[in-house]
Amino acid sequence: MSVPTDQSAATVTVLGLGPMGRALAGAFLAAGLRTTVWNRTPGRDAEPAARGAHPAATAEEAVAASDLTVVCLVNYDASDAVLRQDAVTAALKGRTVLNLSADTPGRARDTADWAARHGIRYLDGAIMTPAPTIGTPDAVFLYSGPEELYAEQRPVLAALGGTHTRLGEEIGRAAVYDIALLDIFWTAAAGYTHALAVARAEGVTARELAPFAQGIAAILPELFTEFAEDTDTGTYSGELNPITSAASTLAHIVHASEAHGIDASVVRVIEGQARRVIALGHGTDGFSRVAEVLAPR
Amino acid sequence: MSVPTDQSAATVTVLGLGPMGRALAGAFLAAGLRTTVWNRTPGRDAEPAARGAHPAATAEEAVAASDLTVVCLVNYDASDAVLRQDAVTAALKGRTVLNLSADTPGRARDTADWAARHGIRYLDGAIMTPAPTIGTPDAVFLYSGPEELYAEQRPVLAALGGTHTRLGEEIGRAAVYDIALLDIFWTAAAGYTHALAVARAEGVTARELAPFAQGIAAILPELFTEFAEDTDTGTYSGELNPITSAASTLAHIVHASEAHGIDASVVRVIEGQARRVIALGHGTDGFSRVAEVLAPR
Repeated sequence: MSVPTDQSAATVTVLGLGPMGRALAGAFLAAGLRTTVWNRTPGRDAEPAARGAHPAATAEEAVAASDLTVVCLVNYDASDAVLRQDAVTAALKGRTVLNLSADTPGRARDTADWAARHGIRYLDGAIMTPAPTIGTPDAVFLYSGPEELYAEQRPVLAALGGTHTRLGEEIGRAAVYDIALLDIFWTAAAGYTHALAVARAEGVTARELAPFAQGIAAILPELFTEFAEDTDTGTYSGELNPITSAASTLAHIVHASEAHGIDASVVRVIEGQARRVIALGHGTDGFSRVAEVLAPR
Repeated sequence: MSVPTDQSAATVTVLGLGPMGRALAGAFLAAGLRTTVWNRTPGRDAEPAARGAHPAATAEEAVAASDLTVVCLVNYDASDAVLRQDAVTAALKGRTVLNLSADTPGRARDTADWAARHGIRYLDGAIMTPAPTIGTPDAVFLYSGPEELYAEQRPVLAALGGTHTRLGEEIGRAAVYDIALLDIFWTAAAGYTHALAVARAEGVTARELAPFAQGIAAILPELFTEFAEDTDTGTYSGELNPITSAASTLAHIVHASEAHGIDASVVRVIEGQARRVIALGHGTDGFSRVAEVLAPR
C-alpha cells in the first residue's frame, strides 16, 4: 500500500461498522490515516479502536473529526436517519460525504439534493466486492459525482486498495451500475441454486455438477459481449441460437423441475418472456430480444 | 483430428440436419467416416452431400446404412416420430442409437426402455456447446448409458473433437446435467438481459456496462464452488453475505426497475424466495439456503 506522505496526516470518518464498515476502517488505519469511527449500536467500535481508530461518542462528533465521512450502512433509510439529524447535518457543512451504502439511483440523487441544500459536498459510490477484498488488489469501487471532489479524495480512497472507477458526473450512476451488476449476480446465483436443487432430486451432487457449472460460467463473458452488441444496436441475431430453441429448453427445465415438486417459478417467468417474444413474431431472433418486452423502446 | 486407421472405414448416420446436425455430419466427414444423412424436410442434405455425405431417401434407409445412428432433432417428440416408425425400429435392431437431442431425463429413460424392447443398443447424450465448436477442441459432449457400448463408439465420437465425458450407467444422467447446466445458463442470460434493460432506462449503454458484467462473470466460479459445498453439506454459511442483505439488494433492483416501468418479475420471484428463507428463521444464512425452500429435503 503506497500512500503519499502528505496523506498520512489525512483524516477520515467511517459511519457504520458492519463487516464492510470495519473493513474500510481497517484499510484506512493500515494506510496510516487518522480514522474516526461510529456505529449506532454500541460495541461495534471495539475492534477498530483496538487497531488505533478514534471511537466517537456521537455521529456529529464523528463527522466533525474529518474532512471526509464515508458512510457504509445497510441502505439510505439508515444513512438518512443518521445524516439528516440537525446536529449531524450542521457538522457536515463544508465537508465531504461519500455514501457507499447500497440503494437505488433515486436515493443517491435525493441525497445529493439534500447535500446541496446544506452546503455539504457529496460523492456517491458502490463497493462491488466482499469485505475481505478491501485493502487488497481485488477490491472494486465505483463512484459518481463531481470530478474535482473525486480528484481531491482520490488519494485517501487509494488506501482502500483495488480498482477505483469514477463513472461520471451524474450522481446516480454508481447506483445504476451497482443495481445492474447485482441483478446479474443474484439472478445467476438463483439459477445455480435452482439447478443444484434439480440435480440433487435426480441424484447428482452439487460437487459433481460444479465443475460443469464452472464451464458455463466460462462461456458467459462471450454471451455478455454478444448481448451488449444486440441491445445497443437493437438487432438480436438468433442465427445459431434462436429464441424458439431457448423456449424449448426452458420448458424442459420447468418440466423436469416440477416433476420432482421443485418450484420452477423463475424459469417459468423466463420461459414466458421468451414466448412473448416468439408470439410477437420474433422467433428467429436471439434471446436478448427479451430486453424489448421487458422495456419497450 | 487424429482418427485411428481402422475407424476410417467406420460408418455413421446422422438424423436431423439443423445447424447442429450439419455440424456433426461435417465433423464425421472431415474425419473420413462414411457418413449417411437424412432430414425430414428435404433439401437440408444438399450441403452435407456436397461434402461427401450419402443422402438417404428415407429414415429406414439411413439407419440401415450404419452401425451407429446419431440423432439430433429438436426434442424427443421429434425423435420418437422418426425412430418409432415400424420400418425404422426394425432396421435399427442390433444397431446403436445415440440420441443427442435435448429433452428431459424422463424422455431419455423412456427411449432407453423402447430401445431395450426392440433389441436396439442405446446411448443418450447432450451437446453443451454451440454448432461452430463441433470438430474443434471447444466442443463439450456428455453421455450416459452402458460402458461397453460407449467404449465401442468412442473412436467414432472422437471425430467430433473436444471433450467427451460419460457420466454413468443411468441413461437419464446426461439429460440431468444438460437441464441443470442450461438452467444456469439461461437464468444468467435472463438476469443480464434485465440488467441491460434497467441500465438503458438509466442512460447507461450495454457497451458501458459490459466490462463490469465481465467482472461479475469472473466471480461466479468462486460462488459456484461455495454454493456446491453449502448444498452438499446442508450448511449455508452467510457470515459475510447474509440472505437478509441479498433480499435488501433484490428489493432495490425491483424498485429501480419498476420505477422505469420495466418488468421485474424474475427478481420479484427471487426476492420472494429469499424472504421465505428469512421468514423461516434463517436470515443469517447465505442465499444458497433457497435450495431448501425450492425443494425441501
